Amino acid sequence: MAMTATGPGATTARPFGPAVALSCRECGERYELGPRFACEFCFGPLEVAYEFGEVSHASIAAGPASIWRYAGLLPVPANVAELPNMNPGLTRLVRADRLAAELGMRTLHVKDDSGNPTHSFKDRVVAIAVEAARTFGFRTLSCSSTGNLAGAVGAAAARAGFGSCVFIPAGLEEGKVIMAAVYGGRVVAIDGNYDDVNRFCSELIGDPAGEDWGFVNVNLRPYYGEGSKTLAYEIAEQLGWRLPEQIIIPIASGSQLTKIDKGFQELIKLGLVEDRPYKIFGAQATGCSPVARAWEQGHDVIQPVKPDTIAKSLAIGNPADGPYVLDICRRTGGAVAHVSDAEVVDSIGLLARTEGVFAETAGGVTTGVLRKLLAEGALDPAAETVVLNTGDGLKTLNAVEAGVTATIKPSLKAFKDAGLL
Amino acid sequence: MAMTATGPGATTARPFGPAVALSCRECGERYELGPRFACEFCFGPLEVAYEFGEVSHASIAAGPASIWRYAGLLPVPANVAELPNMNPGLTRLVRADRLAAELGMRTLHVKDDSGNPTHSFKDRVVAIAVEAARTFGFRTLSCSSTGNLAGAVGAAAARAGFGSCVFIPAGLEEGKVIMAAVYGGRVVAIDGNYDDVNRFCSELIGDPAGEDWGFVNVNLRPYYGEGSKTLAYEIAEQLGWRLPEQIIIPIASGSQLTKIDKGFQELIKLGLVEDRPYKIFGAQATGCSPVARAWEQGHDVIQPVKPDTIAKSLAIGNPADGPYVLDICRRTGGAVAHVSDAEVVDSIGLLARTEGVFAETAGGVTTGVLRKLLAEGALDPAAETVVLNTGDGLKTLNAVEAGVTATIKPSLKAFKDAGLL
Repeated sequence: MAMTATGPGATTARPFGPAVALSCRECGERYELGPRFACEFCFGPLEVAYEFGEVSHASIAAGPASIWRYAGLLPVPANVAELPNMNPGLTRLVRADRLAAELGMRTLHVKDDSGNPTHSFKDRVVAIAVEAARTFGFRTLSCSSTGNLAGAVGAAAARAGFGSCVFIPAGLEEGKVIMAAVYGGRVVAIDGNYDDVNRFCSELIGDPAGEDWGFVNVNLRPYYGEGSKTLAYEIAEQLGWRLPEQIIIPIASGSQLTKIDKGFQELIKLGLVEDRPYKIFGAQATGCSPVARAWEQGHDVIQPVKPDTIAKSLAIGNPADGPYVLDICRRTGGAVAHVSDAEVVDSIGLLARTEGVFAETAGGVTTGVLRKLLAEGALDPAAETVVLNTGDGLKTLNAVEAGVTATIKPSLKAFKDAGLL
Repeated sequence: MAMTATGPGATTARPFGPAVALSCRECGERYELGPRFACEFCFGPLEVAYEFGEVSHASIAAGPASIWRYAGLLPVPANVAELPNMNPGLTRLVRADRLAAELGMRTLHVKDDSGNPTHSFKDRVVAIAVEAARTFGFRTLSCSSTGNLAGAVGAAAARAGFGSCVFIPAGLEEGKVIMAAVYGGRVVAIDGNYDDVNRFCSELIGDPAGEDWGFVNVNLRPYYGEGSKTLAYEIAEQLGWRLPEQIIIPIASGSQLTKIDKGFQELIKLGLVEDRPYKIFGAQATGCSPVARAWEQGHDVIQPVKPDTIAKSLAIGNPADGPYVLDICRRTGGAVAHVSDAEVVDSIGLLARTEGVFAETAGGVTTGVLRKLLAEGALDPAAETVVLNTGDGLKTLNAVEAGVTATIKPSLKAFKDAGLL
């Protein structure tokens, strides 16, 4: 593969900042930082290993209003904020007192990632992958996507001066398709579901045709995944450098959940937050709940499923990080649960009418699981809790039953006659 | 009208912060701060008058990552960030080097207000109006809207615990209708255009039925309008406390343009930026360009038009602040120009493929006018320029011609056969 730093706007001095190696999550084998993603010995996933320098509350606070304030904890160059990227992150942590009151909770926050540039958390992970692609000299950015990622890659590639070609399952929501295509890259729909798209991409990456392509969630995956750590950093900083006691995270591949846990652990080790217990809860839609099923049955192995849910951004039937999710939820005293599509729709409405947050279906899944686990007694209503909304309601309009209350002539009489006062 | 501070979460001590009166923009007559919007003597519009206290770069930098960092310059209480509101603002100022290169410019920035909670600049103005409504004891928030405002009011009302009833012209984009309705308030479509909706609201506000209603853009308009000043403050702060040399602003009612000018003037008077010349340019769609027509013809009076453009968020045929816009563009050495719907669509694509910013039609209007005025020599390509994108492409999907490049079977052969490499 192309390894020289010749990509658009390449940097040379310590392009990966504090990152020092790739390391196999299964056997610990270490590799030089490069476009690899699987261990040559045990085929385990590779992840980024660091030797962190000095990072303090003050050094972070002095940084930019984006994920780059945490550059010292990410595999990116120190000058990353000056490079042409999307500058995602530092989205709102919304104090949700009205929703908390309705659910009988004491302290609840919504981490609302719809405020990112393309309105999902995917801007975070793509931003890291783009910097790696620049360093490795790739020319085309690519991905398999359930929708949000396609838009994030399209936008980031345009801004950074890469070509792009993204792969999505046929039949995605119109908003997600247009948002992927508007940036001018190629958008290829695959007859099949996300898991078919993913298999196709693995085939392409082994072919000479894909040689100078950076697949953000395949050969750039170790870098890409690190972007989700920034959710952990931001939540802790926005709580006043404190970990939440409970957090509800959606599960697609499961990567995001594992990286938020990794982020919390790093903050503890660096002394940036107090080491106190936190519980991580995973959330799936019933129509694609392989991890929740394994949790219920006490299994360590995930049985793949064929997804059938309106929560398309979570519709990964064979989630690669499922076993790690089970480990983390067990270790922290959390749980993995699922809610029906009807509960997803109802929960989107609940979040909107109490807090003014219009969530994507994935946010309906987490809010639904929050409500369900509270009712079951698995969540403590008195503990400080954060629920994630990782996407935007505008991209899943079909999931919402809302429209005009009435259409009337422009007169006071017509208004009064319509009984709308 | 209800004047006691009994609204949800009301504050009592200096609820309007540095604001001291309402003052008529025409005759200068002053009024106590209240839910008034027109001068009793000359019918001129009222605006907020201030006695500013100590405001410094440091005091602003120490504030929250929202418009409330400028609370000392707005008609809001000092503790406004603790009240249940949407905390809009501090959206990205995107350095647009690739777009600048394509247009032959030296330094260009896009102020991208799609990052606001409901993805338009309207969250800024509504946030101020909500605080006034709280103080005045209103129970229902309302507005006439071309779409974006309806969503912003619905969300803000939900979060702040008000009821809401918003009025929109029939036939708005689906995304805007759903976004207005999802927060649980009433959404009433009016058979007619925005100007009909506006007239209807004026009728309702004079009726006892509307007595405890806060119409954010009618009886709360003096407060509401001040929210647009925050665009000026943010742009100056994000440029390192410097005014841009040229700025392109969309014109609907014209209020936003006048308030950005007011914000720049305040910063100069307070010594927060150097007093240097800046030029303000107004942008309209050809299908609703009454201010641009008046500019072309050298008139001071705006001839109302019947709007016919895809830029529905700018489709106000009788813009109240049109004459003030003409004054400001003349005084600063700017201009007012218009572009066709075809140019709007093309400019949305240009901005997306160069900078990864997916703009609403209004952003296509400003980008189109930028390109047009550069070609005509009315804009200086060497001067530091800011172009506003005030809304989100996801809400005007119909305006975009983009979709999948191809649909294929999940195989490498199908991909290669489709000629997509």
